[in-house]
Amino acid sequence: MTPNALNFSGGPGALPATVLDETRDAIVALPETGRSVLGMSHRSAWFLGLLDEAERNIRALLGLPERYAISFLQGGSSLLFATIPMNFATRAFAPPEYVNSGYWSRRASAEAQRTAACRIAWDGAPTGFSELPALQQLAVAPNAAYLHYVSNETVEGLQFGDGEARSAVPLIADMSSDFLSRPLAAERFAMIYAHAQKNLGPAGVTVALIDRALLERIPPNLPHMLDLRTQIEHRSNYNTPPVFAIYVLTLVTRWLRNEIGGLAAMQRINEAKAQRLYGTLDAMREVVKVHAAAPWRSRMNAAFTFGDARLDRAFIACANARGMAGLEGHRSLGGLRASLYNAVTLEAVDVLCETLIEFGRRHA
Amino acid sequence: MTPNALNFSGGPGALPATVLDETRDAIVALPETGRSVLGMSHRSAWFLGLLDEAERNIRALLGLPERYAISFLQGGSSLLFATIPMNFATRAFAPPEYVNSGYWSRRASAEAQRTAACRIAWDGAPTGFSELPALQQLAVAPNAAYLHYVSNETVEGLQFGDGEARSAVPLIADMSSDFLSRPLAAERFAMIYAHAQKNLGPAGVTVALIDRALLERIPPNLPHMLDLRTQIEHRSNYNTPPVFAIYVLTLVTRWLRNEIGGLAAMQRINEAKAQRLYGTLDAMREVVKVHAAAPWRSRMNAAFTFGDARLDRAFIACANARGMAGLEGHRSLGGLRASLYNAVTLEAVDVLCETLIEFGRRHA
Repeated sequence: MTPNALNFSGGPGALPATVLDETRDAIVALPETGRSVLGMSHRSAWFLGLLDEAERNIRALLGLPERYAISFLQGGSSLLFATIPMNFATRAFAPPEYVNSGYWSRRASAEAQRTAACRIAWDGAPTGFSELPALQQLAVAPNAAYLHYVSNETVEGLQFGDGEARSAVPLIADMSSDFLSRPLAAERFAMIYAHAQKNLGPAGVTVALIDRALLERIPPNLPHMLDLRTQIEHRSNYNTPPVFAIYVLTLVTRWLRNEIGGLAAMQRINEAKAQRLYGTLDAMREVVKVHAAAPWRSRMNAAFTFGDARLDRAFIACANARGMAGLEGHRSLGGLRASLYNAVTLEAVDVLCETLIEFGRRHA
Repeated sequence: MTPNALNFSGGPGALPATVLDETRDAIVALPETGRSVLGMSHRSAWFLGLLDEAERNIRALLGLPERYAISFLQGGSSLLFATIPMNFATRAFAPPEYVNSGYWSRRASAEAQRTAACRIAWDGAPTGFSELPALQQLAVAPNAAYLHYVSNETVEGLQFGDGEARSAVPLIADMSSDFLSRPLAAERFAMIYAHAQKNLGPAGVTVALIDRALLERIPPNLPHMLDLRTQIEHRSNYNTPPVFAIYVLTLVTRWLRNEIGGLAAMQRINEAKAQRLYGTLDAMREVVKVHAAAPWRSRMNAAFTFGDARLDRAFIACANARGMAGLEGHRSLGGLRASLYNAVTLEAVDVLCETLIEFGRRHA
């Protein structure tokens, strides 16, 4: 297996081999233009067609209703943590509510609080960020500006079920680490956003889906680049967009439609990968501990530990020697983390599981 | 000559052939890691080393004093048009002053005015944006927060001489289209910024050099991603940076140091290219008109016209048939524009000039 196939990084992470091959060629000559993708103007017919295809692919994969606008943004989720309250936490509503379920959702609410008063609708601290709440049972003020949550916590390896996504107030989800990994009832959301470097492409672009009805709330006179209407009105071409990142993202969405066959097929593959890995870890429960409680285990990121930093490091060395990479836990939690994003194959997970079993046997 | 060599686009534009070749290989396997550059973690030792090298190369090329911080940002110049007044136009100072010398500087001041009161220190509208002022002779309030200008106007093809860069108040320059195209007395500036897609790399990253003394002015409680201290304190790794764009930028700065031999050598090449092109256009003055008045002609972008939209279109068709691209004028000005960024060779300019001469003869 190639080194790229054995990339278990939390992101930027693995990309499909066919996408990498096509991208490699495009660096010198795009088939459509004969020129480098890196030298293509963002006003060229080629790029305008690419933006159209990216949007069309995302709409087709999700069955996204026309009332949602799609835009491609810079600055990552971290910038949206600030711009979302700037745009939507207006005085006409009660404070927005945030679900603090792990590292990234806490980052989101802490940043929002620099811009607007926020309410914490649920806090996972008492259970060590190893469990998740039932969203539809949270006591949220009926006139709250919105309810924000993170659908998959990459650090702790926690994931909401898609069936959980219900709320009486506008629901805004950071889906950076599981967007397009499974089918999604998008019509339940006011806004969904996801940076590319997990399942969509390279770092440098963030996809936002916004119900156009929400745009009417945006106050006047925000800086243009912080007003979420700007890139929607300019079809993601207000200023020079990250052309290359959008190009790779388009290839990935094409791969999802044409090679994988859509999100239900992608979900089946992702479920199989997660079952293989968690099955292995559960069989090793004498020597290894999974961070997340069973009902909320993420299909995208498994955070676990041999219970000893020395053993964890030894496992990483052993895995790296076999060509794997990216298995270090996030610096905030330590331990180990295996990320199983869309482009990680079941065969790669098999290699990881075999290595885990052997290592566990040697160190039992 | 290859299609990439004949790219006269205003940006994203031409990149050096050796950089494109090395980048192509890195899409599948970086020589240093054996893995795709697109799957490398932003926390990996490889990427931290790359950030160090990018900064080291820029410091070496400019002879940049240590008191300047360098950071790599997202959002382009358009986001900085808003964040600069947020950070530096504080109540302790008189309003910032802006030089309105063309399309991009007017965009900068219009955006700044959404955030802070600004004064227009000079306006090129009466002379049709074909001339530039002497910066050091402008009547600027002595306690103005800063003086902002755009060193090269890509649309109109106007460029300040580096010798002009003097001001009694902190000087902030958008150098997006001529940064690293010539030596620069960086110590005269409080802040310099430049997005990559002209002379530095692909779209998606913006370099900012900031005198650390200026950072003390930044008000507390700005959103982290809009506070210019954030990426400086986190060595451009506060959130996931655009890894790929920074990778290509690093290769370009390496090329400038090792293959070109530094900024004085780059300037000689750029001067030769500009002389060749403007010499050709001047010799054709019966049929072609350069937009910029002679003393302020840009070495980076020549804006010109055959005086007739039909003829301009016919020239573009003729040039495209010979493998050239990107010669359309900016949509706000029309006509023609040839961009001579660092990676455009003298040989490519020769091809353009021969085509101009032939076309001019046929249509005289």
